[in-house]
Amino acid sequence: MIVGVLGGGQLGRMMALAGLPLGLRLRFLDPDPGCPAAEAGELIVGRYDEPAALQRFVRGVGVATYEFENVPAAAARWLTEHVAVFPPQNALAVAQDRVLEKRCFRSLGIGTAEFEEVDTLGGLAAAVDKLGTPCVLKTRRFGYDGKGQAVIRTPSDVRGAWDAVVGTRTGDADLELEAMVEFDRELSIIGVRGRDGRMAFYPAIENSHSGGILSFSVAPAPGLGEARQQELERACGRVMEHLDYVGVLTIEFFELAGGGLLANEMAPRVHNSGHWSIEGAECSQFENHLRAVCGLPLGSTRMAGSETDGPGGVSMMFNIVGRAPASREILAIPGARLHMYGKAERAGRKLGHVTLCADTFAGLQRRAAAVRSVLERAGGRP
Amino acid sequence: MIVGVLGGGQLGRMMALAGLPLGLRLRFLDPDPGCPAAEAGELIVGRYDEPAALQRFVRGVGVATYEFENVPAAAARWLTEHVAVFPPQNALAVAQDRVLEKRCFRSLGIGTAEFEEVDTLGGLAAAVDKLGTPCVLKTRRFGYDGKGQAVIRTPSDVRGAWDAVVGTRTGDADLELEAMVEFDRELSIIGVRGRDGRMAFYPAIENSHSGGILSFSVAPAPGLGEARQQELERACGRVMEHLDYVGVLTIEFFELAGGGLLANEMAPRVHNSGHWSIEGAECSQFENHLRAVCGLPLGSTRMAGSETDGPGGVSMMFNIVGRAPASREILAIPGARLHMYGKAERAGRKLGHVTLCADTFAGLQRRAAAVRSVLERAGGRP
Repeated sequence: MIVGVLGGGQLGRMMALAGLPLGLRLRFLDPDPGCPAAEAGELIVGRYDEPAALQRFVRGVGVATYEFENVPAAAARWLTEHVAVFPPQNALAVAQDRVLEKRCFRSLGIGTAEFEEVDTLGGLAAAVDKLGTPCVLKTRRFGYDGKGQAVIRTPSDVRGAWDAVVGTRTGDADLELEAMVEFDRELSIIGVRGRDGRMAFYPAIENSHSGGILSFSVAPAPGLGEARQQELERACGRVMEHLDYVGVLTIEFFELAGGGLLANEMAPRVHNSGHWSIEGAECSQFENHLRAVCGLPLGSTRMAGSETDGPGGVSMMFNIVGRAPASREILAIPGARLHMYGKAERAGRKLGHVTLCADTFAGLQRRAAAVRSVLERAGGRP
Repeated sequence: MIVGVLGGGQLGRMMALAGLPLGLRLRFLDPDPGCPAAEAGELIVGRYDEPAALQRFVRGVGVATYEFENVPAAAARWLTEHVAVFPPQNALAVAQDRVLEKRCFRSLGIGTAEFEEVDTLGGLAAAVDKLGTPCVLKTRRFGYDGKGQAVIRTPSDVRGAWDAVVGTRTGDADLELEAMVEFDRELSIIGVRGRDGRMAFYPAIENSHSGGILSFSVAPAPGLGEARQQELERACGRVMEHLDYVGVLTIEFFELAGGGLLANEMAPRVHNSGHWSIEGAECSQFENHLRAVCGLPLGSTRMAGSETDGPGGVSMMFNIVGRAPASREILAIPGARLHMYGKAERAGRKLGHVTLCADTFAGLQRRAAAVRSVLERAGGRP
C-alpha cells in the first residue's frame, strides 16, 4: 500500500523509516525538493494547495495523512474528497486554532489556562485588564516552537506585544491572550487510536525547553505515579473519542506546583517529545501512527523490554538544534542512538536527535552528561 | 557522505534504513529497477560489469561496499581503483571460493570438514574414494541457500551428483567435495572490524534451516557458554586480522556432537542470521557495517538492554520464505517486529522476517509459537 503524507520534514522521514519494514511505501508532498523525507521515500514537489501536485500525490494512494498540522484547509478538504485521510479534518481544524483547541479541552472537562479571544489592539488592552498580568499574547494559528508569541508583564507591554506578534499594522488579527501559568514542568501524553476505535497510550513524557524549542525529553516522566498517568490517558482518550480520531495524537500539559494539570495544546500527529519511542518503546509512535491510519493492529506502547517479562526501561531524547556535532562524537558514546534529519545547519533548526535507553535513570546519568557535553561543544543546544 | 553499495537486495535495503539516521546517504547499483533497496535509497540500474553504470555509481561516493559476495572480480578491481572499497578485495576473493576459504580457515588453525578440489568427473570419483561417503559435491563459487550442491551417499551417486551440480557437460568444472559432517547444530558468529583495527562480536547465533534456507535464528545461541563464545570470537578475529578486514564478517560453524567446532563458510557482509540485531542488539549489524566502512566508532554488539545496568535480552528471528502472511496477522502478535523486503512472492524466496525480543527464552515461547503458526498458515516457512 502507498501511504501519502502531506509534508516531508523529519517527522515524515522517520515515518518512512518505520513504514518500509511494514511493507508500506510512503509518498510525500512538499514544496522543498531537498526536504528530509526525500531521501526516504517518493517525493512530489509542489505546494499543498497546487491542484496538479495534489492530483499526482493521491494517484494510487491507499490512505493519506500529514506530518504537520498547518495543512491549508482547502487542501485537506480536497484530499478527503479523493482518498481516506486520517487524522480526520475536524481534528486538524481544532488543532490549528488555539481558541478552538482550548474550547475543545474545556468542553471535555480538561482544564486549560484562562484565555480570551483578541482581534484588535483595543480588545487586547481589555483582555489584559480581565486576565491580569503576566499573560501571553499568541497567534491563534500557525505558531510553533515559541514563534508568534509575546509575554505581557505589565499593561504597558500591550503595544509592544501587539507589534511583536502582529506587526505594525493595527487592523484585525486572530489572536488569543492566555493567563501565564506558573508550572513545575511540562508533560506530554502521546496516544494512538486505530480505525476500530482501540486506543493505546505511551508513558507520559517530561519535556524541557530552551528558547521555546524542545531541548530534551525523559520517558517515563520521573516520579509521575500511576494515578497521574491514568489521568493523562483519560484526557487524551476523551479528546480522541470526541474527534473520532485515527492516528497518533499528542497533548502537552502543564503540571502545576500544587499538583494541578492544565492542557496547553495538542498536535494531531507524531511529536518531537515521542522520538525516544523509536528505540525506547516496543513499537514507535511513527510505526503506530502508520498502523492506525492503515487500519492495522496497534503495536505495544509500553517501554521496550516490558512486553513480556521485563519491568521496562527508561529513555532520554536530546534534540540537536542549530549546529550538529561530528557524528563520530555522538557515536563514540556507548549506546547513544543518533538520528540525523539530512538538514543544513541554521540557528534554531532541529537537525537531529540523540536517544539513550537504560533500565534505570541511574544507568543513564553518565551517558546523558556525555551527550550534553558533545552537543554543547558543538554550539548547539542543549 | 554517500555510501555506494553494490547490490540492492534486502541487505542493502536494511543498510539504508540503518544509514539514514546516521546522516549517510546510500546509493545502490543493481540490474533490477524493482530491487528491494530501490525504495530506501538512490538506485543506479545497471550490470555490475557495465563501465557506464560503474562510473555513475562512484561519482561523489565517499566509500563503497557490497551486500552480496558474488561481485564480479573485474568490477571489484575497477572500483578499488576509483574509491575506497571495504571489505577489502582479498576478502571477497577468499569468500567467493570454497577451497580458498577452507584453506584460509585451516592456515589460521580453524578446523573445517575434510575436502578435496575436484575439476573432472574422474577426479570426483577419486575424491569420493578418498573422503568416503556420505559427502557433498559443491560448486567452488556462486552457490547460495543450498543451491549448487548435491549429496553423494554411495559411490554410485557420483554421476548423478555431477549432473546435478555441473549439468550434462563433462568438461572441467570448479568443484569441491566435502566430507559430510554430522553436526548437532549450526552456529554463526558475526564480527565487525573498524578501519582502526578495533573489533567487536555479536553473541553467537544458533541457526535452523529448512530445505537449505535459513528458517530461524536464536541469539544468543542457547546453552553456549562463555568459553565457546570466546572460541568463536577468536576464530572470527583471526580471520578478520589475517584479511585486514573492514566491515561485518559472518562465519558459519558446525557444532559437533562431541563438542568439536568446524568452520563451514564465511560471508564478507551482513548476514541473514544477524537480522535479529536490528531490535535485539544495542547497535545492529547493518549500522555497525556502515560505521566500520565509514571509519566511524563501532557500536555496541551486546544484546539490547545490556549496555548499562541490564543483563541483556534474547532474540528470535523467523524468515518469511516463499509466501507472506497478511501483515496484520504478524502485527497482531504482541511485540512481533515485521520486516518486509518489498519483494514479490516466489517459492524459496526470502520475502521478509519477523523478530521477537524478550528478557528470557521463557518469555518468548508463546509468541514464537504464534509467529510460527501464522507463517505456517500462510504456506511459507517455517
